[in-house]
Amino acid sequence: MFYHIKELQYEARPTRPDAAYAKQLQEILGGQYGEISVMMQYLFQGFNGRADKKYRDLCLDIGTEEIGHVELLATMIARLLDGAPAAEQEAAYKSNPVLAAVMGGMNPQHFIASGLGAMPVDSVGNRWTASYIGASGNLLADFRANLTAESMGRLQAVRLYELSDDPGVKDTLSFLIARDTGHQNQWAAAIAELEAREGDIVVPTNFPRELEKQAVSYDLYNLSRGEASQSGRWASGPTMDGKSTFRYVSNPVPYGPKPKLSPAPLYVHDTMKPPSLK
Amino acid sequence: MFYHIKELQYEARPTRPDAAYAKQLQEILGGQYGEISVMMQYLFQGFNGRADKKYRDLCLDIGTEEIGHVELLATMIARLLDGAPAAEQEAAYKSNPVLAAVMGGMNPQHFIASGLGAMPVDSVGNRWTASYIGASGNLLADFRANLTAESMGRLQAVRLYELSDDPGVKDTLSFLIARDTGHQNQWAAAIAELEAREGDIVVPTNFPRELEKQAVSYDLYNLSRGEASQSGRWASGPTMDGKSTFRYVSNPVPYGPKPKLSPAPLYVHDTMKPPSLK
Amino acid sequence: MFYHIKELQYEARPTRPDAAYAKQLQEILGGQYGEISVMMQYLFQGFNGRADKKYRDLCLDIGTEEIGHVELLATMIARLLDGAPAAEQEAAYKSNPVLAAVMGGMNPQHFIASGLGAMPVDSVGNRWTASYIGASGNLLADFRANLTAESMGRLQAVRLYELSDDPGVKDTLSFLIARDTGHQNQWAAAIAELEAREGDIVVPTNFPRELEKQAVSYDLYNLSRGEASQSGRWASGPTMDGKSTFRYVSNPVPYGPKPKLSPAPLYVHDTMKPPSLK
Amino acid sequence: MFYHIKELQYEARPTRPDAAYAKQLQEILGGQYGEISVMMQYLFQGFNGRADKKYRDLCLDIGTEEIGHVELLATMIARLLDGAPAAEQEAAYKSNPVLAAVMGGMNPQHFIASGLGAMPVDSVGNRWTASYIGASGNLLADFRANLTAESMGRLQAVRLYELSDDPGVKDTLSFLIARDTGHQNQWAAAIAELEAREGDIVVPTNFPRELEKQAVSYDLYNLSRGEASQSGRWASGPTMDGKSTFRYVSNPVPYGPKPKLSPAPLYVHDTMKPPSLK
Amino acid sequence: MFYHIKELQYEARPTRPDAAYAKQLQEILGGQYGEISVMMQYLFQGFNGRADKKYRDLCLDIGTEEIGHVELLATMIARLLDGAPAAEQEAAYKSNPVLAAVMGGMNPQHFIASGLGAMPVDSVGNRWTASYIGASGNLLADFRANLTAESMGRLQAVRLYELSDDPGVKDTLSFLIARDTGHQNQWAAAIAELEAREGDIVVPTNFPRELEKQAVSYDLYNLSRGEASQSGRWASGPTMDGKSTFRYVSNPVPYGPKPKLSPAPLYVHDTMKPPSLK
Amino acid sequence: MFYHIKELQYEARPTRPDAAYAKQLQEILGGQYGEISVMMQYLFQGFNGRADKKYRDLCLDIGTEEIGHVELLATMIARLLDGAPAAEQEAAYKSNPVLAAVMGGMNPQHFIASGLGAMPVDSVGNRWTASYIGASGNLLADFRANLTAESMGRLQAVRLYELSDDPGVKDTLSFLIARDTGHQNQWAAAIAELEAREGDIVVPTNFPRELEKQAVSYDLYNLSRGEASQSGRWASGPTMDGKSTFRYVSNPVPYGPKPKLSPAPLYVHDTMKPPSLK
Repeated sequence: MFYHIKELQYEARPTRPDAAYAKQLQEILGGQYGEISVMMQYLFQGFNGRADKKYRDLCLDIGTEEIGHVELLATMIARLLDGAPAAEQEAAYKSNPVLAAVMGGMNPQHFIASGLGAMPVDSVGNRWTASYIGASGNLLADFRANLTAESMGRLQAVRLYELSDDPGVKDTLSFLIARDTGHQNQWAAAIAELEAREGDIVVPTNFPRELEKQAVSYDLYNLSRGEASQSGRWASGPTMDGKSTFRYVSNPVPYGPKPKLSPAPLYVHDTMKPPSLK
Repeated sequence: MFYHIKELQYEARPTRPDAAYAKQLQEILGGQYGEISVMMQYLFQGFNGRADKKYRDLCLDIGTEEIGHVELLATMIARLLDGAPAAEQEAAYKSNPVLAAVMGGMNPQHFIASGLGAMPVDSVGNRWTASYIGASGNLLADFRANLTAESMGRLQAVRLYELSDDPGVKDTLSFLIARDTGHQNQWAAAIAELEAREGDIVVPTNFPRELEKQAVSYDLYNLSRGEASQSGRWASGPTMDGKSTFRYVSNPVPYGPKPKLSPAPLYVHDTMKPPSLK
Repeated sequence: MFYHIKELQYEARPTRPDAAYAKQLQEILGGQYGEISVMMQYLFQGFNGRADKKYRDLCLDIGTEEIGHVELLATMIARLLDGAPAAEQEAAYKSNPVLAAVMGGMNPQHFIASGLGAMPVDSVGNRWTASYIGASGNLLADFRANLTAESMGRLQAVRLYELSDDPGVKDTLSFLIARDTGHQNQWAAAIAELEAREGDIVVPTNFPRELEKQAVSYDLYNLSRGEASQSGRWASGPTMDGKSTFRYVSNPVPYGPKPKLSPAPLYVHDTMKPPSLK
Repeated sequence: MFYHIKELQYEARPTRPDAAYAKQLQEILGGQYGEISVMMQYLFQGFNGRADKKYRDLCLDIGTEEIGHVELLATMIARLLDGAPAAEQEAAYKSNPVLAAVMGGMNPQHFIASGLGAMPVDSVGNRWTASYIGASGNLLADFRANLTAESMGRLQAVRLYELSDDPGVKDTLSFLIARDTGHQNQWAAAIAELEAREGDIVVPTNFPRELEKQAVSYDLYNLSRGEASQSGRWASGPTMDGKSTFRYVSNPVPYGPKPKLSPAPLYVHDTMKPPSLK
Repeated sequence: MFYHIKELQYEARPTRPDAAYAKQLQEILGGQYGEISVMMQYLFQGFNGRADKKYRDLCLDIGTEEIGHVELLATMIARLLDGAPAAEQEAAYKSNPVLAAVMGGMNPQHFIASGLGAMPVDSVGNRWTASYIGASGNLLADFRANLTAESMGRLQAVRLYELSDDPGVKDTLSFLIARDTGHQNQWAAAIAELEAREGDIVVPTNFPRELEKQAVSYDLYNLSRGEASQSGRWASGPTMDGKSTFRYVSNPVPYGPKPKLSPAPLYVHDTMKPPSLK
Repeated sequence: MFYHIKELQYEARPTRPDAAYAKQLQEILGGQYGEISVMMQYLFQGFNGRADKKYRDLCLDIGTEEIGHVELLATMIARLLDGAPAAEQEAAYKSNPVLAAVMGGMNPQHFIASGLGAMPVDSVGNRWTASYIGASGNLLADFRANLTAESMGRLQAVRLYELSDDPGVKDTLSFLIARDTGHQNQWAAAIAELEAREGDIVVPTNFPRELEKQAVSYDLYNLSRGEASQSGRWASGPTMDGKSTFRYVSNPVPYGPKPKLSPAPLYVHDTMKPPSLK
């Protein structure tokens, strides 16, 4: 069960309205790696948590923080939209194509649909979708998804930080960037703890390796001609799970035959000549 | 530029048709973490690769392999659909509710829409969407996304392996599971190489830390009451980036004030009482 | 900013696992009118609230409660999935087509993708999308959307209540149904308060009526032949906004001419004969 | 069965082309609350209508009118796109960044994809989706959805009216706004009629109240700290259904225990320590 | 402007309810190639029609017919859902797993969400989306899209015809199949007329051929090893546009060089080693 | 199984960066009729191919070429994005609204999300979805879908060709346009071959005509008032399948009765007055 207090986790006050920036900032609110995504991902991992309660608690701690980040960015965006598109600007619009152009940088739904409010969309207007999140019931896989999300999220926040010269915006982003630093460290720590405990890095760690086709488990197939990829850590030396050594296969070949599918039964109606006529 | 040979990378021949299993197997072909997702993710990372060419080559090597995995699973699914729903079964349908029920386990689009062919959909029929993939232009973030995808993919393949008792299906899955083992190791190796080179684990590694709100960078806020999360590696000791120590905040408080948004301008039409009347 | 406590707002414990019902119950968690929808709708209305703070507070009070309802249903669904598909059932699957059929009622992603956890999807597996929610910046329009959502939500909860004979499930649903009763009353009260204050029921209430084509404002056009619709409250008598009387138009005619679009410029390449040749 | 006449329900002729406005106007054609949405919502309610035929007829009367509104807006948009992007403008584009910027306000698909035609999309290009509509089989719930749609639709039309200074555009919008006035009144009338007949306002009206957890049916939980929401009509006095009084709960507490989920079975592969080791 | 009469274009009365078949039949109502798709595709082509008015009229004639087909299938589906899931069946559900299984073949939203009504979805529950339709402003391209849609639509209707043994269902489908026969012939005729008039079959017909890289215009590249594709009409002989002869290229080679992208600027933060260090 | 070589099928090098054009060019990479669509459509048709192997080979030949086209356009787009938005431009942004406006023509995700890389999206940012493709198991239907896709694709490429004055862009597009010419001819040839072999043009060709309602198979119903459509090839003369003559029906009438649906059972809760009270 959740409680809300009116105070924001951090200040969210731009120095001046900027409707075009409001559109761009939507990316880290309602985009693929935005705050809604991490909020939903961590909360579902927490709600579904069947393992040690400390993992469940961790997901719910951070997931609850992320609801507050959604609030924080929504507040910021609403303020960036203050007075857009102002009636007087609209009047100017008609005689001033430059102003018209600047207006053109706004997401029109920020006026027509939300009435100067934040929306659960990304920077081009795609609606947020649960296709963005993962909660698999496997802690290690999920924590890797979380580390990815925080990495992508911080990267985008940094890019947006550099696009802005509004000290208020930059201040808020510097807070969110710092939190992403923390969350990357925390998920990385959780991953390290799990990998150490399991003695393996391969998800899922408890599928018997003898059931997989072990002969090909550590091959890198050179399927894009040119051997630049041979010089990386991934192509030679001990594998990361400590169980073998990487093998670079310069000229990979198929292990399977050419497939030939059975003819379709007549009721499929596939415009196929009857076998006797082929 | 790409070339195709007719041979499959590995055999894909079920022992017997099983339309219900074909539906389930779609998850790792056209689902969120299926082969289409990794194919598209790695190819776009490769095509967009602006960094050292060995990374670009790595993405294209594995991305090209994944096109072959799409082929492999599509072939398997087409064969699992052989003869479904057979006309004679349909006749039986009418008098035999048990058979009818078994038929009910089929994805109806496998007959009506694809005519016994594989589809770019998941196990419940959601169409594949590019919302599933990430290619950010940051190698470390992308490789974490890749490690996540391989972790999720192998987890799902293992679950599907255990759902089947068809030796042909299991044989093919044992190959794909082994390849996922390899790819997890390879992306993990690439990540380790990049982290070592950068001397940091926080994406992006080259944003000046002094620009972020460092006072809160390593806090874990106990926002879900109860302190189970305090006992993990993420809550105390040195941070994973080696730059500080984790700090557990038992009673987190807000740093920002209560927000109060400006009233909407009249042309927003927000059903708000004029200020004078409030 | 938000806080979480581990206690649920209400008990969520089914008497026994039932994976098929878990699939159906997803409708009111992640469906069009499910708890995620109302949670997101109310929270965004609250975050964007520019009007009197009591409306903002109302949205945040109820929106915060709905996060707890998401938690409650996710917990219920996870428990309904306990032990599905059990390994021993899988063994039975092979020899027992009836059991196989029952298994067929499960959402396969509940095993393959979420590992026996709830998902942000509806009862057929469509991922939750922000296309479901509305937050327009107009209080009256938004509260009507809220009343609609609670009406649809209670309707679906009632249908699911009647589909179940598990006392634990029914107990939890009886709580959610009661809360929907309350929320319907609360949004209806807020609507009544706003309508009374505005002295109008037409959203937006402050667009000057003389700017609209008032001659047609209260017509009902009989465009589906047959006059059954003439006998309703909407076809005669005073209009609901008290400004006029309804008018039923038995034989509606067009007010506009036949349109003729300009020919496409050549660079559109529209396979259109040049004008001289027509 | 449907018939079409070439005349438009109302004139749809802008004074001059304006490709940027065409993009914005798409919101009320193909957006969440646009004409396609109400057309499809009312037609499906009508086609599915199992109740008194006057309700069915009402849905089909208005639904059929909305097909004509789709036509009307599509015609308007096609005309707003006349000559965009003209070849001569394109030449100017290269030397005139202001003009280039104005061109930038166009939806590029209006040229590349539709060849100067209207599209079933909203103002940012999201494709229309049936996720926007509701047809539940419950008249009162559906009519509330209809009233919501007309409220949102008129709000957006008004905002677009004020964005334009083209008399032709404003004339057409003044017609559509008037029709929305009518439809809001008509659905409100239908709602009032049903509520009076049922003697209740809570959807569904015929679920026995004693089956719900009546003790909490009229509570408002103060879950967002601060009691501004206590001063509204929804927090005290008789409930809107006339069955009780509202109750404001200042310090809401949970009614349920902390959940603890069963451990996942081994075949879920959840990276969970075996119970004996916890 | 549109008019509706209550009569159906054809009878739509199944002999008996069949909720599982109702789910399957949704494919040709709300699926990719269902009646909603052709209705919307033809209407938008008509509304946007800038060419000779006979083409516009043709699109509107058939588009208007398709609205009636949507009505017809919606009616049929509502009737197939009659009494599902009946309360007495639900009672039986508990003691009779076979019946439970049969119930499992129903789309649960047909009860929970639509209350026994048709929905704008396909046979697995995907919501209809405007991503399915094309209206390009080029008549020949559009008519090919129309011929495709009618081909796919008739194919699916035939498959559904053969899945059913209900004479009422088959009768209605035999009508729709016949109409698809007609529409395939009509669009084919329109295509033939346009191709003859233009003297070309390549869309768009009026782009100067000398502007394209004519040296490769008629090559077929053997990029999938094996030369089975060499024996078709497409690999030798005169081209279909009569302008050249097909050329089969057994060993296709690239015409372009290896690409090397510019390094990303620093503000992209791409984890790329500075050039000096590579 | 697939192989990749680093060389591009054709050069993809714009003369200068142009981020606004990069956004537009996305249409033919990740749009409805872009290269991803044809790649996936042909590959799935090939993988699922159950008919003569020459058709399968043809699909795989062209499908494999299309993967290379995805690569080619992705490379072009990445180069068009070089240096956007340059830091120095950003500085100028603040003092120069014209430049700001030009920047506004960029897809913000090209910087924030992809870091100057191509994305699997269209020109307004919609993510690619498998809803765009068709693979039905019927060769003739599929080849018509392919001819449609190549027609739409060449049309869009031509429009984009004319929007550009960059010789490098135009050179690459002239190659892609030529390939679309070839593919239109090849699919048209395959269609002609199949139609000749089958002796019919109606998909599916092998459904017995006597099972359809032949009386209406060749009617054109004049449902949009006005008889312009009577003057086309589709309204009189022999039908395209050679089996009959077209019939134009000036005043079409319904063949079915008014439908009346059964009342909903009580458990549907449809706000319907009990029958006795109507």
